[in-house]
Amino acid sequence: MDQTSYRTLDAGGIREFLAGLPAIATRLGGVPEQWQVHEVSDGNLNNVFLVTGPAGEVCLKQSLPHVRVDPSWKMPLDRTYFEAAWLAAIGPLVGELTTEYLHFDPELYVLVVESLSGHTVLRTALMQGADWPEVAPRIGTFVARACFGTSLLARPFEDVFDARRIFAANQALTRITLDLVFDDPYRDHPRNHWHDPALSPIVQDIRTSAAALLAVENLRRRFLSQPQALLHGDLHTGSIMSTADDTRVIDGEFALYGPIGFDCGMFVGNLVLHFFATPDLAARQAVLRDIASFWHSFHEQFMALWNANDAPPPGTLRPLAYGPAAHVVQQAFMDEVMADTIGFAAIEIIRRLIGYAHTADFDTITDPRLRATCRAGALAFAYYVLDHLADMRTIADFLSCLGENERKGI
Amino acid sequence: MDQTSYRTLDAGGIREFLAGLPAIATRLGGVPEQWQVHEVSDGNLNNVFLVTGPAGEVCLKQSLPHVRVDPSWKMPLDRTYFEAAWLAAIGPLVGELTTEYLHFDPELYVLVVESLSGHTVLRTALMQGADWPEVAPRIGTFVARACFGTSLLARPFEDVFDARRIFAANQALTRITLDLVFDDPYRDHPRNHWHDPALSPIVQDIRTSAAALLAVENLRRRFLSQPQALLHGDLHTGSIMSTADDTRVIDGEFALYGPIGFDCGMFVGNLVLHFFATPDLAARQAVLRDIASFWHSFHEQFMALWNANDAPPPGTLRPLAYGPAAHVVQQAFMDEVMADTIGFAAIEIIRRLIGYAHTADFDTITDPRLRATCRAGALAFAYYVLDHLADMRTIADFLSCLGENERKGI
Ligand SMILES: Nc1ncnc2c1ncn2[C@@H]1O[C@H](COP(=O)(O)OP(=O)(O)OP(=O)(O)O)[C@@H](O)[C@H]1O
Ligand SMILES: Nc1ncnc2c1ncn2[C@@H]1O[C@H](COP(=O)(O)OP(=O)(O)OP(=O)(O)O)[C@@H](O)[C@H]1O
Ligand SMILES: [Mg+2]
Ligand SMILES: [Mg+2]
Repeated sequence: MDQTSYRTLDAGGIREFLAGLPAIATRLGGVPEQWQVHEVSDGNLNNVFLVTGPAGEVCLKQSLPHVRVDPSWKMPLDRTYFEAAWLAAIGPLVGELTTEYLHFDPELYVLVVESLSGHTVLRTALMQGADWPEVAPRIGTFVARACFGTSLLARPFEDVFDARRIFAANQALTRITLDLVFDDPYRDHPRNHWHDPALSPIVQDIRTSAAALLAVENLRRRFLSQPQALLHGDLHTGSIMSTADDTRVIDGEFALYGPIGFDCGMFVGNLVLHFFATPDLAARQAVLRDIASFWHSFHEQFMALWNANDAPPPGTLRPLAYGPAAHVVQQAFMDEVMADTIGFAAIEIIRRLIGYAHTADFDTITDPRLRATCRAGALAFAYYVLDHLADMRTIADFLSCLGENERKGI
Repeated sequence: MDQTSYRTLDAGGIREFLAGLPAIATRLGGVPEQWQVHEVSDGNLNNVFLVTGPAGEVCLKQSLPHVRVDPSWKMPLDRTYFEAAWLAAIGPLVGELTTEYLHFDPELYVLVVESLSGHTVLRTALMQGADWPEVAPRIGTFVARACFGTSLLARPFEDVFDARRIFAANQALTRITLDLVFDDPYRDHPRNHWHDPALSPIVQDIRTSAAALLAVENLRRRFLSQPQALLHGDLHTGSIMSTADDTRVIDGEFALYGPIGFDCGMFVGNLVLHFFATPDLAARQAVLRDIASFWHSFHEQFMALWNANDAPPPGTLRPLAYGPAAHVVQQAFMDEVMADTIGFAAIEIIRRLIGYAHTADFDTITDPRLRATCRAGALAFAYYVLDHLADMRTIADFLSCLGENERKGI
């Protein structure tokens, strides 16, 4: 990767850069001096700007040679390259469930995409009390289409192997996931932190439970060894922007080939975090509904694509056995995704409470004691799930376990 | 891959080419005019020559732009590239269980390796009645070292992902395996052939058994979706050269990341073919012994590498859980390899009897009726295994099933 001409763009640099891209300049309209550049970075990693002209707006994302919020943590620039590659791969499969890909510059590591206006980051919307029943099933559709369409079920193996080759190079971000999600929380590490002492005994329990550690080990192995489909890789509620009517998945820089249940589990895990961060019973009911409708939609769409017999998918893994036997294969495949979903959800919850990168969900609770109780409830739930993973193979099991917390209230 | 200067080398071209490689010229000794070039190609794919000088000998392998035995079947030249990459990767892990890597030329697609003298291709040796009890355990050691050492158990995930990227490009040969091993035999295809009518009803049974087809489908999915380790990819008894004392694995051009049980199963499947091709009861007993000692040695060596606690392997998949819990993970891993071994052995047997590429084993039987009965026995055994895969999870089960054939004799 040629970094000779890389420089971090400021507002002036951004105007100059976009002025050199005729299609985007036309989209913005007017002259560069009129373009408003507005920084919206709120994540850990990259600079993100909205650029507004008289005729339109675009979103520009640039990688930095370090973590945005910690310049001492060096990092290669190529993450926008992988985000661009991900968007190019899944855009045609998911249509309006992501942003339109406009441009990628391989020297500046700048990605330009459609700007979303009126959309709110889903985590923020949930914290503000939005109740949008259509969002979760749309994410189910998104995962089904993106994962089915990049898998051996839909593509000749040569295409899948080529795509795996591309994303197997996304190692800096895969390493982050490995360390922050699968490793740090299960041992002493300076990146871990939690404020509430109520969490400490549960952390101790997790770290000394053979069943929980075996589950984590197994999930970590599956994360690295089951390249079923091109994953988003970081599908939490901060990677989704939505209105009540329109939902987009953004920020695919962590993309990798992996187990489909990893994307499902990360989304479900973040819904569960919201569940525990909202003591309101109606809001908790809405989360239970959302998890169920997410899974239902994912399952239904995935099966519909698989069974599109009028135009059978040209994948290398088309079935040899038809009729009832084909159903056995499909059932086993979906059961495996479901088990993965539950396991990955649990470890996502854990790392968001005791690892490096927490989420803001619990900040809406102002009473510190209530907040600590809610966090402990979430951690205890995730621990219970990991510890009983063998008995909890269906989303229904998972929801009924979560529902017990709902009925108990706090 | 630059093919501009590619040309197929004849004896003169080989002398000229090797004369340009000082280390090899020295190894051969004398002057190029003295070097004897002797073609030994006996496989389907490449030109192979032994070059003998006054001081030493080397083996030279060159890819052709087509299948050697069928010039109308076009094929990319890069297979010696992948064989060279495989040899470079596993050579340091397996030591004297393969040939020494001497040179690779990326324009001529020529690989030069140590020449083996006094060694016989194992399949030929078995057909000639050799009984070398040490060969099978050496192959067990070979698979254990090569697979453990290229897996996430032994290497940081970055190294494994880089290696996967290299071998995921070995698509022409992976496509051949997919078509010839996992696909053709289970449907009508002009590449299939068998002479003995006694096989036809068994072929019909296989193709209409839902259980067998599901098993094949599952194994095909695992072949493409379980990149556990760098496999040889074609580990039949024709890819092994041996004496009683020294055993070498050659011909790694099919190398890919895949399930470890694929290498194990291909070796075991070819031993089973020999079993059925030798009506002699003592020779059959020797095969049962070899399969058991292969597995025992593989298992023991793999576990020893995994549990080398004095120098724990620096793999990303080091255990989180120690003590008895670690044992659970290892047991589950090895059980999965064992189940794969049995399944892949069965499909290897089937494709060698009814697919494109048969083996010579049965040619030692001169009576055509006996030969047909023996082949039918092998095919029926493989069918039985595939049809009962769920109940046949251990090598002991597999051997006792095979042993019933032994006691029955023909
Ligand atoms: N297409 C867009 N239109 C409008 N706003 C956007 C768009 N893409 C991103 N944003 C805003 O910019 C923020 C940061 O974007 P993004 O999550 O892609 O950056 P990041 O640096 O990769 O974050 P993270 O650390 O979570 O990985 C988003 O939370 C959102 O508020
Ligand atoms: N290092 C060696 N020393 C001596 N003889 C060798 C050596 N390597 C290969 N041979 C001989 O050459 C033959 C062909 O080699 P090899 O199997 O590598 O070729 P191939 O064209 O890839 O065959 P296949 O069609 O089975 O893939 C072997 O069966 C063996 O007889
Ligand atoms: Mg991001
Ligand atoms: Mg070969």
